[in-house]
Amino acid sequence: MVREKWRLVKNQLKQDIEAGVFKPGDRLPTEPELAAQFSAGRHSVRRAVLELSKEGSLSVEQGRGTFVEAAPLLEYAIGSRTRLRRNLEAQGVDISGELLSATQVKSSEKVAHALGLVPGALVIESRRITYADGVPIAFGASYHSAERFPDFAARRDVLGSTTQAYETYGIRDYVRAETTLHSRLARPDEAKLLKQHADSPVVVISALDELLDGTPLSYKKVIWSALRVKFSMSKDGI
Amino acid sequence: MVREKWRLVKNQLKQDIEAGVFKPGDRLPTEPELAAQFSAGRHSVRRAVLELSKEGSLSVEQGRGTFVEAAPLLEYAIGSRTRLRRNLEAQGVDISGELLSATQVKSSEKVAHALGLVPGALVIESRRITYADGVPIAFGASYHSAERFPDFAARRDVLGSTTQAYETYGIRDYVRAETTLHSRLARPDEAKLLKQHADSPVVVISALDELLDGTPLSYKKVIWSALRVKFSMSKDGI
Repeated sequence: MVREKWRLVKNQLKQDIEAGVFKPGDRLPTEPELAAQFSAGRHSVRRAVLELSKEGSLSVEQGRGTFVEAAPLLEYAIGSRTRLRRNLEAQGVDISGELLSATQVKSSEKVAHALGLVPGALVIESRRITYADGVPIAFGASYHSAERFPDFAARRDVLGSTTQAYETYGIRDYVRAETTLHSRLARPDEAKLLKQHADSPVVVISALDELLDGTPLSYKKVIWSALRVKFSMSKDGI
Repeated sequence: MVREKWRLVKNQLKQDIEAGVFKPGDRLPTEPELAAQFSAGRHSVRRAVLELSKEGSLSVEQGRGTFVEAAPLLEYAIGSRTRLRRNLEAQGVDISGELLSATQVKSSEKVAHALGLVPGALVIESRRITYADGVPIAFGASYHSAERFPDFAARRDVLGSTTQAYETYGIRDYVRAETTLHSRLARPDEAKLLKQHADSPVVVISALDELLDGTPLSYKKVIWSALRVKFSMSKDGI
């Protein structure tokens, strides 16, 4: 059986992408250039590129060229029932986390406003980092009223689940009320913590969770690695 | 009346930020450094920084330092009733746009799947760029069935509104069914089109609009300037 030429080209291109010869976002050489490089016909090159596009490794953009796609991103669904672990573990990754600090601080104006507290009221600031299969994907701080949830951070850390920590306070359900999101370049210490290149972006998410009756529960600000996670919103929530 | 020193420090800092002496994301010099620089007491510096934090120009991050915040971003609310113009014009900016091209193409697998068409079915690809007060904030492509909406792009361009263009087809209402979002560095041609620095991020949004009965209406992929727009999702939609 004759090995089809386009398959050889496809495999070589795939290896080059995996080896980082072509990096995510790179524009692929033109068809004639690739044909010369692989000693292949343009038809074989075209077929190889088409197949890799179908597999998601390449993206052909009309009139702009063919680009190398980044490795698939984890998808974090934002909805009224947003739950970190359930959300991401359904995608076959192992989610773990670490409590970096838990301190009682005076609330900033923003945090107090979000939580419906008097500015300066005491809140517990818990800083956590989250890993997917051992790779950092996000870190950030969450804020709870110190009066109502004095040891939330410790309980959450022991139980390994925000939902279960709330249950120890008699809270059986809560909803994501508001989420705000923007992207910017990582600051040096953020890039270091997320183990990503200094000139790469992060997605900054602020979110408010509340009880079903609208009572604010927690406010958080989380820095996500834009290299590892994408976000989705659906009309049906999740 | 004696002019309070902290006000002088605050005004000078503010001018320095506006003039770009301190750029968004920059870490501000330490309190003693600023005190020396402005020949002011540390108390005045602290007060000036506090006031600028309240105004949103600075962001004090415990244990990390004080950072210059970017100019306020336009907020694009993603919800089941997402409408570009209504969304952004409520923030006092003038939204305009330009049709870059409208071509009939064979649908890719992704577009066909989203629109519920047979792969390869003909679709109209409309490429548009959107400006807020004359500054580019996003560009991208939307896809409609060529059979059902043969001249959608032209109608939308004449009417200046997607909602009104749909009305000419007898469609009175539609919802945003799915939105997926990730961030990456701008590609060179994207940075050029958005008039932003080459090493700055964009937010890539894919979205599906559909009729109230669930019939797919349009699929689009839009590249947003991460420097100019943030996104929000609320449990109540918009």
